[in-house]
Amino acid sequence: MLRETIEKIKQIDTGLMEEAQRRLDNLTKPQGSLGRLEELAKQVVGITGKIEPNLERKVIFTMAGDHGVVEEGVSAYPKEVTPQMVYNFLSGGAGINVLAKHVGAEVVVVDMGVAEELKTQNSKLKTKKIGYGTKNMAKGPAMTRDEAIRAIKAGIEVFEEEGKIDIVGTGDMGIANTTPSSAIVAVFTGESPERVTGKGTGIDDVSWRNKVEVIERALEVNKPDPSDPIDVLSKIGGFEIGGLVGIILAGAAYKIPVVIDGFISGAAALIAVGLEPKVKDYLFASHCSVEIGHRIALNKMGLRPILDLNLRLGEGTGAALGINLIDAGCKILTQMATFGSAGVSEKVR
Amino acid sequence: MLRETIEKIKQIDTGLMEEAQRRLDNLTKPQGSLGRLEELAKQVVGITGKIEPNLERKVIFTMAGDHGVVEEGVSAYPKEVTPQMVYNFLSGGAGINVLAKHVGAEVVVVDMGVAEELKTQNSKLKTKKIGYGTKNMAKGPAMTRDEAIRAIKAGIEVFEEEGKIDIVGTGDMGIANTTPSSAIVAVFTGESPERVTGKGTGIDDVSWRNKVEVIERALEVNKPDPSDPIDVLSKIGGFEIGGLVGIILAGAAYKIPVVIDGFISGAAALIAVGLEPKVKDYLFASHCSVEIGHRIALNKMGLRPILDLNLRLGEGTGAALGINLIDAGCKILTQMATFGSAGVSEKVR
Repeated sequence: MLRETIEKIKQIDTGLMEEAQRRLDNLTKPQGSLGRLEELAKQVVGITGKIEPNLERKVIFTMAGDHGVVEEGVSAYPKEVTPQMVYNFLSGGAGINVLAKHVGAEVVVVDMGVAEELKTQNSKLKTKKIGYGTKNMAKGPAMTRDEAIRAIKAGIEVFEEEGKIDIVGTGDMGIANTTPSSAIVAVFTGESPERVTGKGTGIDDVSWRNKVEVIERALEVNKPDPSDPIDVLSKIGGFEIGGLVGIILAGAAYKIPVVIDGFISGAAALIAVGLEPKVKDYLFASHCSVEIGHRIALNKMGLRPILDLNLRLGEGTGAALGINLIDAGCKILTQMATFGSAGVSEKVR
Repeated sequence: MLRETIEKIKQIDTGLMEEAQRRLDNLTKPQGSLGRLEELAKQVVGITGKIEPNLERKVIFTMAGDHGVVEEGVSAYPKEVTPQMVYNFLSGGAGINVLAKHVGAEVVVVDMGVAEELKTQNSKLKTKKIGYGTKNMAKGPAMTRDEAIRAIKAGIEVFEEEGKIDIVGTGDMGIANTTPSSAIVAVFTGESPERVTGKGTGIDDVSWRNKVEVIERALEVNKPDPSDPIDVLSKIGGFEIGGLVGIILAGAAYKIPVVIDGFISGAAALIAVGLEPKVKDYLFASHCSVEIGHRIALNKMGLRPILDLNLRLGEGTGAALGINLIDAGCKILTQMATFGSAGVSEKVR
């Protein structure tokens, strides 16, 4: 199934993007004057193969999982916050709920591996539990290779189960998950853990130093192989990160624009792009996170963030805002008048 | 009336902003993790004096005017495009129509001084014609001092006539209007015309050189006095720029957040802030324009742009997108759950 999905991923339609450019150039505005909005629209055309894309159904997958490495004291918050925040997502009180509603997107919450049994009948929760939290990567692999593959497959499944999606956003929740994400970014970019490790939810300098050392230890103990992205995911990843890899691959396979959120989504994107480089053209980097490794990860993939608002929450909050701007760009392409239709004179100089 | 409006402008409520900060810090997210969105919300609280601001009615004023200086060959487009674009605004086909609709804002189109009689019964058009285009500022003052004051008053009037407004955006239309705007920015910042003059709607290098020289001539002929903002507006401004000054002053007087668009709105803001420095705290710079003088103008006022999307269209398009993000910030403040209400554990480290 994983191979099948990856094989479905084709080059985006650059011919149709040229047609989109001609349309954009004929709208009642100086050529190129809507800058990035025009580029976003053009990329959506290339991805979807539709010259008049309509981003009606917007879905953000917020995937949750716990991390054994939390026992090393790498996070500012206790691990019970992961399930607590899942309940918060389900009752609509979290940042992602507010921003998704603001932009007209739905939130699908997925339990990829929260460390406890979630007590809820809420149908908004999808359960794809690969395990009760990963193992401590500072001592050995976070999960087995089989679990890593199952996590990615679960992401593909939840995507497919949702039916029609016009644009997808990625989001995460998992106390301690900036630690595996920094480790992943270090492995794929060749940067030192120190350079790609930030303060996550807000640890102090002493805890930051410890976090860097924990990541160094995890890399030494596990020796993840960047030419084998599944190896990286299994040794130093997380269940929700694997799920996000699945969402990203499925989006690309089904020609759906994929809007990645912040640092954790960026780490997942590195794995997905590692599995299939063509994935890159299906991705939009919604924003540049405060987390210092994020820009390094985006640069590695050649992605330019749309927003720079000093966000560092995750959950898909940045993705929600990015989706809104991509939607704005598509509406420019499809709803504006042309010089001809509006009777506006063209450039003379 | 102008003096009355200016006297109404008070300091924003910094005490209430501190209360807003405490609320923000108690929401279910790491403190400060929604970055700029939180700052935007806090500033709206300070401006409106409401701890739970609700930005229900969003209005963008797109003010149109013509410029005598167009006869110097400073623009890429012929001047008939100004009325043609006004008709386009009224029939809903322009960029501002699409983006305003996207963010749930209304567009109020104002004829501040288009060079011809507009033939329309469309009630969306407000007519406040100060004249049929300004005079050529390269040869003498663009307008009389009385006209400058009347233009500002007209802006205040259209604002007041609109009734309840919760957030206001500024927008412009006027072939050749980056030329007076560059001149205004040069005068208030002390920068040379060369440094603050861009390519507007897309002129070539030869036309750009001519544009710079026209501005140099306008400054030499008129000697506008930056300590007298009305003098600057009358000698090297425009009717729509005066109208925007009025909108900005009225917004501040009525404690309404004012979201300025690009370069022309930035020039208007410099005049408004020149008239009353407290205005500055009521302003949000929606984006940083491609027009090179824009960042210089924003720096002068200490404003940090929210977006950087290579826009250079005007009309209020950037303001529309900025309004949407400010709205998002306010919803974060008012709609998110707190740690207490959601039963989420707080920070331990």
